[in-house]
Amino acid sequence: MQQIRIGIVGYGNLARGAEKAIRLQPDMQLVAVFSRRENITSESGTPVYSMKDIPSFVNKIDIMFLCGGSANDLMEQAQEIGSLFHVIDSFDTHAKVEEHFQAMDKVAKESGKIAFISFGWDPGLFSLQRLLGESILPQGKNYTFWGRGISQGHSNAVRRIPGVKDAKQYTVPKEEYLENCRAGATEDISATESHVRECFVVLEDDANPAEIENTIRTMPNYFEGYETVVHFISEEEMARDHAAMPHGGFVLRVGQTAENEKEVVEFNLRLDSNPNFTASTIIAYTRAIMRFAEEGRSGCFTILDIPISYISPKNPIEQRKLL
Amino acid sequence: MQQIRIGIVGYGNLARGAEKAIRLQPDMQLVAVFSRRENITSESGTPVYSMKDIPSFVNKIDIMFLCGGSANDLMEQAQEIGSLFHVIDSFDTHAKVEEHFQAMDKVAKESGKIAFISFGWDPGLFSLQRLLGESILPQGKNYTFWGRGISQGHSNAVRRIPGVKDAKQYTVPKEEYLENCRAGATEDISATESHVRECFVVLEDDANPAEIENTIRTMPNYFEGYETVVHFISEEEMARDHAAMPHGGFVLRVGQTAENEKEVVEFNLRLDSNPNFTASTIIAYTRAIMRFAEEGRSGCFTILDIPISYISPKNPIEQRKLL
Repeated sequence: MQQIRIGIVGYGNLARGAEKAIRLQPDMQLVAVFSRRENITSESGTPVYSMKDIPSFVNKIDIMFLCGGSANDLMEQAQEIGSLFHVIDSFDTHAKVEEHFQAMDKVAKESGKIAFISFGWDPGLFSLQRLLGESILPQGKNYTFWGRGISQGHSNAVRRIPGVKDAKQYTVPKEEYLENCRAGATEDISATESHVRECFVVLEDDANPAEIENTIRTMPNYFEGYETVVHFISEEEMARDHAAMPHGGFVLRVGQTAENEKEVVEFNLRLDSNPNFTASTIIAYTRAIMRFAEEGRSGCFTILDIPISYISPKNPIEQRKLL
Repeated sequence: MQQIRIGIVGYGNLARGAEKAIRLQPDMQLVAVFSRRENITSESGTPVYSMKDIPSFVNKIDIMFLCGGSANDLMEQAQEIGSLFHVIDSFDTHAKVEEHFQAMDKVAKESGKIAFISFGWDPGLFSLQRLLGESILPQGKNYTFWGRGISQGHSNAVRRIPGVKDAKQYTVPKEEYLENCRAGATEDISATESHVRECFVVLEDDANPAEIENTIRTMPNYFEGYETVVHFISEEEMARDHAAMPHGGFVLRVGQTAENEKEVVEFNLRLDSNPNFTASTIIAYTRAIMRFAEEGRSGCFTILDIPISYISPKNPIEQRKLL
């Protein structure tokens, strides 16, 4: 079997998820990890190189999976690396997706490479299901519920409050709103009314719990308007009960096919590990990069452009047995 | 806007669903219905022609949606019509899908046309989700639950029992099995143990209820081994409570990304009308036929081969806003 030779750029949680995911795919091989940090080792024992070594891997690596940090870093990095390799990323800054797409489309077309951007589950699988639902049921509405899972942005916002030693914030969908959608309700629902924000907070010794709880509840843009629950816990409880990275969510299309006739299409995820599942999704889609390259295509593509058959290791006859 | 010109071949429930679905899609137009029956009218007022008039619609219709009856009829009809038009069908005889695919691939390639086979939700959207789930999570299992919905085959089997005047059989997934899968259980589950078969039966005046209930419960291949519930009802109750055609189901992929780490991907449908939703799905996919034709492709394809972007009326920039 021709192996897909993959490199990982950046070594955080998503990269460690990719290491695990590649091991489960018989037609893929992790060749190297590239990091800005020096003297680190990878969990899988894959050699770790400096970022400046990347160009020397042309012809040794087919696809670079970009696991880099902030939106701006990733955009710049993708353009550099995308001129030498096929690349795939999980770019999730909604407002800049089109800018990133146009830049990568230019880079990839000039270099004859493929760039896959914004892969994962949201953006990614959730986007795919939204487009599927609205195309089939044009008369209807999309609903998205996130969680139960940790929001990094909200956790950081709580951690920045003076007197807070550590914090994790779980976004939790309200069951009654979800059930209403499943039953075919079509009223508008805001994220604010349909989610609970649940915070687990470790305090500094001299902190005032009532004051901090109030600061959290009234924080504009993050908590104001939401039903917010605050639990104060010990450092030991934080380490014991909140080290995992679960997440998930629900995408629903509630549509009408005739008067008083509702059709509900739902896609949902229940994830023990958000980064490991995200990486598994991205890694499966590297197969489609190889297929597109074989077809002589180049340029930038999103998950919306990829036939599912292109991400399967099965041959077409085996795939059609699922029909 | 260039309209997709559609013809419907065969005029049953699925065809009536297609009439409704086409009305909701601004870029589609229903040109004609073709039927074996004489002197019928269509719900939408679309002219109804004889089957023998089909060839005269070359250049007037782009795509024929084949709503024909039995597997054998449909296979033959698809080959005849597929030599003149692009065609799409909902072929669902699992054991013959590959034979139908090969035959249609030959016909379509010879005529320079596109044939889309086995579209709908199962086969169709459910097949797509199974392939997606297993590609992302190679270490895991697929589970399918059907219902709550009417099984035509089981309803007919009950109707054939002497003393039964009318019958409807609902297939009902057992909630506890579904919840186990959602919680990450990975044991093997048979359709027999995970579904209830619920029958609503109208008896002839002289029939013996106990005897008929026993005949149902012990019917090999259909009910034997299943938890079966039998309700005897009046003709009035049958007409009042069981005229609708609801259906639905659940496809789950329960996979592992690391030891003791489960990821659950679920797709489900809650349908007030099985034929109307099936038709809506098929009608949306006619857009992809036009896209494939523009690209100069010909041959047979299944839902697994189609990028979701190809079934959307939105332009690529609008689509990417969903990311």
